[in-house]
Amino acid sequence: MEILDVLKKYSAGVDREIEKALDTVDPENLYNASKHLIKAGGKKIRPALVLLTAEAVGGNIEGAYKTAAAVELIHTFSLIHDDIMDEDEMRRGKPSVHTMWGEPMAILAGDILFSLAFELVAQTQVDDVPASRVIKALNTVVDACIKICEGQACDMSFEEKFDVGESEYLNMIYKKTAALIAAATKSGAIIGGGTAEQVEALSQYGELIGMAFQIQDDYLDVVSEEEELGKPVGSDIVEGKMTLMVVHTLSVASPEDKEELIFILKSGDESNTQRAIDIFNKYGSIDYTRDIALDNVNRAKDLLDLLDDSPAKEALYDLADFMLQRKN
Amino acid sequence: MEILDVLKKYSAGVDREIEKALDTVDPENLYNASKHLIKAGGKKIRPALVLLTAEAVGGNIEGAYKTAAAVELIHTFSLIHDDIMDEDEMRRGKPSVHTMWGEPMAILAGDILFSLAFELVAQTQVDDVPASRVIKALNTVVDACIKICEGQACDMSFEEKFDVGESEYLNMIYKKTAALIAAATKSGAIIGGGTAEQVEALSQYGELIGMAFQIQDDYLDVVSEEEELGKPVGSDIVEGKMTLMVVHTLSVASPEDKEELIFILKSGDESNTQRAIDIFNKYGSIDYTRDIALDNVNRAKDLLDLLDDSPAKEALYDLADFMLQRKN
Repeated sequence: MEILDVLKKYSAGVDREIEKALDTVDPENLYNASKHLIKAGGKKIRPALVLLTAEAVGGNIEGAYKTAAAVELIHTFSLIHDDIMDEDEMRRGKPSVHTMWGEPMAILAGDILFSLAFELVAQTQVDDVPASRVIKALNTVVDACIKICEGQACDMSFEEKFDVGESEYLNMIYKKTAALIAAATKSGAIIGGGTAEQVEALSQYGELIGMAFQIQDDYLDVVSEEEELGKPVGSDIVEGKMTLMVVHTLSVASPEDKEELIFILKSGDESNTQRAIDIFNKYGSIDYTRDIALDNVNRAKDLLDLLDDSPAKEALYDLADFMLQRKN
Repeated sequence: MEILDVLKKYSAGVDREIEKALDTVDPENLYNASKHLIKAGGKKIRPALVLLTAEAVGGNIEGAYKTAAAVELIHTFSLIHDDIMDEDEMRRGKPSVHTMWGEPMAILAGDILFSLAFELVAQTQVDDVPASRVIKALNTVVDACIKICEGQACDMSFEEKFDVGESEYLNMIYKKTAALIAAATKSGAIIGGGTAEQVEALSQYGELIGMAFQIQDDYLDVVSEEEELGKPVGSDIVEGKMTLMVVHTLSVASPEDKEELIFILKSGDESNTQRAIDIFNKYGSIDYTRDIALDNVNRAKDLLDLLDDSPAKEALYDLADFMLQRKN
């Protein structure tokens, strides 16, 4: 099965759980604000990872649906709050929640999705999922939530800061993006009843593809065609965003090139974009970024070796590749 | 022991748990923003209720400290986010978190306290607290979080709305305030290993004193001396806030008095305060409010009858009375 079909197949059950969880939210404007971004779509990679890892360790998929939905709600909550903090007016091709309902309601919408996520995890009480596993999964998910907050705080602290080291940058994207993806694969393995070794391997698998996912984001910004990317090429450069290309170039470039790159990043002038890309290329930073993403994906796939062969294992393999195949 | 001494005695262990939970928060500005409101103090009634109810059903207090700390963190998270939404610049006599660190960091500070709260509940894994109890306590706490969000959304929807019915108003303060206090007493009883009957009674006890707490707030605004209240008497009237006095008066007053009260509430003019109080008194709304608070407290105390006598039971009795004794 094509990986996009796999995602679609798994998302139906997840959507049902999310709908059930949201159904009782009251008053109506809070309900509408909470549902907005979920209705707007998204690929639902994270919940699929919970379900696939639960299956891949031989567990029953039914027991994992609530945690899968919870992980998607946590992702959605973080997008809603991030959009407020970053003053982003669009998300998934639609106005962001705070743009439509105002900041107070958007804060609340995020908060209630967050609450509902934990309610879902706590409700994972089917026959073959003992309470001790539920608590372990809960610990896994909550740990990722803490990291998401820390990652966002780090990311905000990087603004106008041009001495961010590579490890500091990688730690930020680990917390902001990879930690929740690792929590998805780890909690799936826990709920599915995986061995300690399997849980650890799948946790690492999630972390590696999560890092690849974010690094590929950096990479796509400069190597894509605008039609495929869905936004102008070089947006990150115009916005002066820290990316792995920037971090790498700043760490190896000559003082002159470094100064010029910082000037461009501060300028917000899109006519400078090609010059920034030239500087990246001069220091091999674009290839470097692609290589790191590829290396992460390969290491992630190797970790799957200790699983028995199954369609779920195959899908996890394909999902790792998908991190680099996606065009937007 | 005096009830304030009881609160002080119990808060030491809670403070230690909170400090441990917050200790690893990174980066530093997020750590400072998260700690700010906790350092500013507060009476710590909610965590004391978790500990006292756990003791009152014969449980070991040690197993309840983490949930007690979690409930206090949830309370703090909701204050931080409410202050952003309501644009309140002061809290506990200090600048609010968003006033000091800006809105983005205040949103994050709330989010991470919320996350840490669930981490604390999930970590309740001492010998005499089985995992099934932890999950029940988690469900209780998370249910209150959902209600807090809904209550705040209701409260915001009441602004400039003068046809709020009494049951609608009481439902709002139940969700916004009483639900978390009920979750404190219920989760304490669960973790302490109380019978189903004890858990239910203590949950109701919490709800009743929570309602009394909020209704007393309404009452104090018009019957206090400014020095005792710590803010000008009649602030709620000047701010045009919905209170039980307003709701009651609007439901029984003549069309003329109703119109005048609405005019005063919209005016924001403090020279009208005494006139509003006169209208409240004309319809017995101030006595009505005090009577409802008193009735809640008495019903709460009656519910304690099914507990064996103990210092914890006595303290719960005194805490119910304390809801109406407090001057601010």
